Amino acid sequence: MLNSPQLKSNPSLLVFLPLFYTVWSDAVLTPSEIATIEGLINSQQWLSKQEQDFLLTQLNPSSPPSANELISWREEIKKGADQTEGKTLVDIGFKLVSLHNKGIVPESVFQAKPALINIEATLGFISHEAAFNFQSGTRDTVTQQQITQHTFDVDALTKILDGKNEAIIHKVKTVIADPEFNYVDPGDINTYREKVLQWCHLLADQGFGAMAYPKEYGGQDDMASYFAIMETLSYHDLSLVIKFGVQFGLWGMSVYFLGTEKHHKKYLKDIGSLELPGCFAMTETHHGSNVKGIETTATYDPSTKTIVINTPHVYARKEYIGNAACHGQMATVFAKLIVDGKDYGVSAVVVPLRDKNGKTLPGITIEDCGRKMGLNGVDNGKIEFRNVVVPLENLLDRYTGITDDGKFTSTISSDNRRFFTMLGTLVGGRIGIPRAGLSASKSGLTIAIKYGDQRKQFGPEAAAEVPILNYRTHQRRLMPLLANAYALHFSLQYLTERFLKRSEKEMQEIEALAAGLKSFTTWNATATLQECRECCGGKGYLSENRIDDLKNDTDVFTTFEGDNTVLMQLVAKSRLTEFKQEFGHMNLFGILNYVADQAKTSITELNPITVRNTDEEHLLDPEFQLHAFKYRERDILTSAAKRLKRHIDSGMDSFDAFNVSQHHLVQVSFAYIERLVLEKFIEQVNNTKNEGCKAILKKLCDLFALSQIDKNKGWYLEQGYMEGVKTKAIRKLVNQLCWEVRQEAVPLVNAFAIPESCLAAPIVVNGK
Amino acid sequence: MLNSPQLKSNPSLLVFLPLFYTVWSDAVLTPSEIATIEGLINSQQWLSKQEQDFLLTQLNPSSPPSANELISWREEIKKGADQTEGKTLVDIGFKLVSLHNKGIVPESVFQAKPALINIEATLGFISHEAAFNFQSGTRDTVTQQQITQHTFDVDALTKILDGKNEAIIHKVKTVIADPEFNYVDPGDINTYREKVLQWCHLLADQGFGAMAYPKEYGGQDDMASYFAIMETLSYHDLSLVIKFGVQFGLWGMSVYFLGTEKHHKKYLKDIGSLELPGCFAMTETHHGSNVKGIETTATYDPSTKTIVINTPHVYARKEYIGNAACHGQMATVFAKLIVDGKDYGVSAVVVPLRDKNGKTLPGITIEDCGRKMGLNGVDNGKIEFRNVVVPLENLLDRYTGITDDGKFTSTISSDNRRFFTMLGTLVGGRIGIPRAGLSASKSGLTIAIKYGDQRKQFGPEAAAEVPILNYRTHQRRLMPLLANAYALHFSLQYLTERFLKRSEKEMQEIEALAAGLKSFTTWNATATLQECRECCGGKGYLSENRIDDLKNDTDVFTTFEGDNTVLMQLVAKSRLTEFKQEFGHMNLFGILNYVADQAKTSITELNPITVRNTDEEHLLDPEFQLHAFKYRERDILTSAAKRLKRHIDSGMDSFDAFNVSQHHLVQVSFAYIERLVLEKFIEQVNNTKNEGCKAILKKLCDLFALSQIDKNKGWYLEQGYMEGVKTKAIRKLVNQLCWEVRQEAVPLVNAFAIPESCLAAPIVVNGK
Repeated sequence: MLNSPQLKSNPSLLVFLPLFYTVWSDAVLTPSEIATIEGLINSQQWLSKQEQDFLLTQLNPSSPPSANELISWREEIKKGADQTEGKTLVDIGFKLVSLHNKGIVPESVFQAKPALINIEATLGFISHEAAFNFQSGTRDTVTQQQITQHTFDVDALTKILDGKNEAIIHKVKTVIADPEFNYVDPGDINTYREKVLQWCHLLADQGFGAMAYPKEYGGQDDMASYFAIMETLSYHDLSLVIKFGVQFGLWGMSVYFLGTEKHHKKYLKDIGSLELPGCFAMTETHHGSNVKGIETTATYDPSTKTIVINTPHVYARKEYIGNAACHGQMATVFAKLIVDGKDYGVSAVVVPLRDKNGKTLPGITIEDCGRKMGLNGVDNGKIEFRNVVVPLENLLDRYTGITDDGKFTSTISSDNRRFFTMLGTLVGGRIGIPRAGLSASKSGLTIAIKYGDQRKQFGPEAAAEVPILNYRTHQRRLMPLLANAYALHFSLQYLTERFLKRSEKEMQEIEALAAGLKSFTTWNATATLQECRECCGGKGYLSENRIDDLKNDTDVFTTFEGDNTVLMQLVAKSRLTEFKQEFGHMNLFGILNYVADQAKTSITELNPITVRNTDEEHLLDPEFQLHAFKYRERDILTSAAKRLKRHIDSGMDSFDAFNVSQHHLVQVSFAYIERLVLEKFIEQVNNTKNEGCKAILKKLCDLFALSQIDKNKGWYLEQGYMEGVKTKAIRKLVNQLCWEVRQEAVPLVNAFAIPESCLAAPIVVNGK
Repeated sequence: MLNSPQLKSNPSLLVFLPLFYTVWSDAVLTPSEIATIEGLINSQQWLSKQEQDFLLTQLNPSSPPSANELISWREEIKKGADQTEGKTLVDIGFKLVSLHNKGIVPESVFQAKPALINIEATLGFISHEAAFNFQSGTRDTVTQQQITQHTFDVDALTKILDGKNEAIIHKVKTVIADPEFNYVDPGDINTYREKVLQWCHLLADQGFGAMAYPKEYGGQDDMASYFAIMETLSYHDLSLVIKFGVQFGLWGMSVYFLGTEKHHKKYLKDIGSLELPGCFAMTETHHGSNVKGIETTATYDPSTKTIVINTPHVYARKEYIGNAACHGQMATVFAKLIVDGKDYGVSAVVVPLRDKNGKTLPGITIEDCGRKMGLNGVDNGKIEFRNVVVPLENLLDRYTGITDDGKFTSTISSDNRRFFTMLGTLVGGRIGIPRAGLSASKSGLTIAIKYGDQRKQFGPEAAAEVPILNYRTHQRRLMPLLANAYALHFSLQYLTERFLKRSEKEMQEIEALAAGLKSFTTWNATATLQECRECCGGKGYLSENRIDDLKNDTDVFTTFEGDNTVLMQLVAKSRLTEFKQEFGHMNLFGILNYVADQAKTSITELNPITVRNTDEEHLLDPEFQLHAFKYRERDILTSAAKRLKRHIDSGMDSFDAFNVSQHHLVQVSFAYIERLVLEKFIEQVNNTKNEGCKAILKKLCDLFALSQIDKNKGWYLEQGYMEGVKTKAIRKLVNQLCWEVRQEAVPLVNAFAIPESCLAAPIVVNGK
């Protein structure tokens, strides 16, 4: 076209060039659209018949311009585009005409403007953007402009997160940043396990292992710091954390809480220094969640005053036992205590497994569990006992003893209550694990958010590429999870404090709280790390960027220390008693009656204006948010109680009734935990003095609250608690909050203050 | 109590024993409850004052019975319980009295029955279950009874699934069941990679690699079988599948589809036989999803008629390239083609990387990507080119050529269209990958469901433990995923057929379908395998049980062959054109106008009776189900179009408008894919002749349809398409369908007919 005689004789034909180029380079015209353009051309009086015919040949689908022709058109158009401020194809066309016509656009051509504009609209071009394609560097969208802002003091926020544990957290970070703690490749399991053991020794040397033990046994009597150590170590290798927890938490604490002074004297110091590596041998192949059903026996032999530990069959072997495959020299073994032929239920006995040289002792057979999805630095094993004899003093006898005359004795008469009391002493694990899982989530979020802030991909036509964290879907994927991480941080702090200051009376509540938060937090960790992996694309799949290990190492957190689904059932049953002080298994029906009765009066009338209120002020009001959460909690709980009662009243076996209601009961627990997490987050916001920190925490709290409501909107709509206009307004506000939080996302993950040596991911630490 | 003189003199006191035992062994009484029991005792005229006092001492919280005493009470009670059919504690009490009183219950005691029953109720005991605790083996709940049923012919269902590919599927299964294909430990990457290469050679020897190539180059011209091979291999090691796919799919098909006869003659035979291992070098560190932005250059040198391949900077290296780190001898390299100083956009050039001995050629630098989350049997690498010179004939010139006089030439003038046409030829990968992901999901489901059917944990008080698959939560976790697997199977078959019979005109639709199904299926695979892992508890975490590898190997499926989130945006944009035949980028606005206009008339009025209809017959009617899916699809699509138009009309940059609507657009794609999947599943049910198979497929189809509606209930309620009564009824029906499908779950996974040697998981294959 450009070299055609027609154009040479009438440069005004150039007014069509931008339109023709766009049509050929991008769109495929339908016959009716071609007819529209033909109509335009034929209607232009200033064109000769010959010129009209020429222009029409340029639109013939069977003879398109060549690739080179298109490129030369484009170059020509760019000249015009660069010299005009106009944005439409017509503006550029006029400039082209003027450039080739001594600066003049003939009046006749100029009068064609409305018709040309009309064609652009008919073809569906966005007129005011048409020029971007030819004017490089001029386009500036809101999406491109979004960048990281700093509105708060990162160090101040870190101090709020660390709280009273600041000093020990700092110390642990210093230790694990030492080059001795450089990560190892998990491929060779043996090397990895030995390295993890060596790390544990270094930590024990720092006094971290014995931290929670009494001072007389080398400890500091400081359980708060022990939890902070676990949490901080979890920024590093998770195998290390679990090995550490098995040794000093499970093995040590079982001796400490289930044993008496003689055991403390004999073992605790060596456990705390890692002189005496040991195991916590509870789970069996056929009995995991149902601990009560374990089949290993501990039979008292009065003639020798010894206890005989035996594994009755291969599926009663202890399985998944950490420290068992390689390093454990002793174990707290959970077994049914048999005295005088009678089964007194689950008790705990210290049983030697290996001598100091690591040789397995007679009667003990240990098999390696082999490679796992993660945590391959921990040596899990299966243990079989063939009539292994230990002295009576090895019975951990805080709750179960045998008298000199060979009689069973206990301070707790009921088997049931003794069992739950024993297990209750081990609740600490259900605090340590979610805190570890949360740390892993924070690492994942730090990596994914920093990467998303740097990584650019796609962008507006003819403009720079955009950081992927500026995309709304990317924000929707990561920002609510960032809010969750902050929310759970404060809840787990609350749980820890409740546990540290616990009284006997509060134990049932604290156990339910721990079980619920353990489940909620570890599921959240799995979801968070999965999302972080995907959000980092191929880079997230490379092991060097750490999300692989973070995800796979923490994956079992939803299973161990109590399977999450089973725990959520327990939490629900515990919640059913919130109206009563205490309860046992058998009088649950009474509680159901009571709850169902209460329900008749406890649900308040809904205000017809509130259910439609979409004011931002209202939606961001903590009072509204908390009311929504509490309403849901109470309503689901009472409806579960009524449903169970209805089934049982109708003659259904209570076991079936609970089974039919399982899904409902899980919701009871979720609603409870979600309410608690929001409540604690709101308290934290209110108690924060630093204004910058308070503002960003309020924003995160809003995002947590509203994204939970959005997630549960089906329920709220079903109940009539909200109408569609309101749930839509909430969704919109969640998107808006994601957009706002994204601007502070990098400072927010910086406030986690995870050591660079722990993050280690080259995509973040090395910049790309 | 048992040996007390009071009891000896008045055996009727035994009527209280079951009550007292239950109270002590289980419940904790509140003061008011103790007062209630005291009231009962004091009101009994047949008790002497002394006896009353004695009984009251037995309730003193400060002096509970000892553990041994409780056990002896229990033994005593069991004697009574075993001799009565009665179920309440009172029934057992009367029996005890009678046993100790020469078969007689004194009339005075008998008259206390209503008061005693009343106490049981007051304390909240479930009277008719009270005796279960003492009568072992008598309790029989519905939950315990549920077992696997066989209502259909498993082989017939397998035939339906395999369809026309039965023979090749059988052949592949036979080959991979050979001991040569025993799994290897992924710990040592080098050993693993060599083993995978060796497996690929064995498969190539079977003619599997060349299957889709023309007969003249050693193939069978059979693309359908090629897909079936990929799918079946995916029951085995996923590294093998990807290595296989890289060699024969990506490398081979790029030569086949982007090259011309000279390339086919030169390379295809050796590619199909694995004589010539090669790579598909498209992705760069800085450009993954945005392929158009790649920076590698292929510059034509007219003086030597050669092409110079160059990597301009380190972030423009080819990354994640399969076969690159070790085995690839050549690569299809995607680069910007520069001719005479002009950039003609992305083209593909065959570039040698290594000589026959595996030595890297001059100018080529390859770095190993190292350990990954999974697929460690594939040798991914980064490739850098330093002015590597190849002859012009290496340009794959089906779409882009250079003439003898050094001019660029193409059958497609527009850069844009040429780019998308080239990429479109590679759509096969977006069919192979979801089919592979679905196979992995089927393996995971087979393992988790068979394990759940065998694994027992917990049970009613004093009764046998229950298979965990009988628990409602477990069913809710796995059964909808089983339904998804079946649903997606038929959709992917449909997609494959559409692809095999494709015409040029249908390509845009098929590409959108492939992109959408790829995303949906691979996300579903990630979710399925995560759930399977958790449902198998600790056993699921052990690598030997395979879910580890299945999950980690397929995790990147959501990223490669197009990041799922990016693909879903593309699908949505494509869906916006469903009203028009064809469109380009620039005239999208016209389409938005059109869709928004159409919307005004297309949404039908909702029937006020239907929105509340909870009849099972209605909910299971495919017409209702499909209407709900279609309504959602259409409504979300038109509202997205209206929203985009509103933003652009208001002057928002279209890039920002699309960004603001991203989340909405993803929903457009989900709604489209979900509708399509349901539609194809319903068709399959209708076309199934075998009655047994038809019935179970109908049940799975219902479960798929209703669990999707349940998942989206927030949307349906928001739109007023359903009221709360209906969504509640649907939830209930989903639970019921889960319960019913569970009974056939084992036969249903058996119908996948996955070779035992592939499943390999000891928890399933060896029974426990």
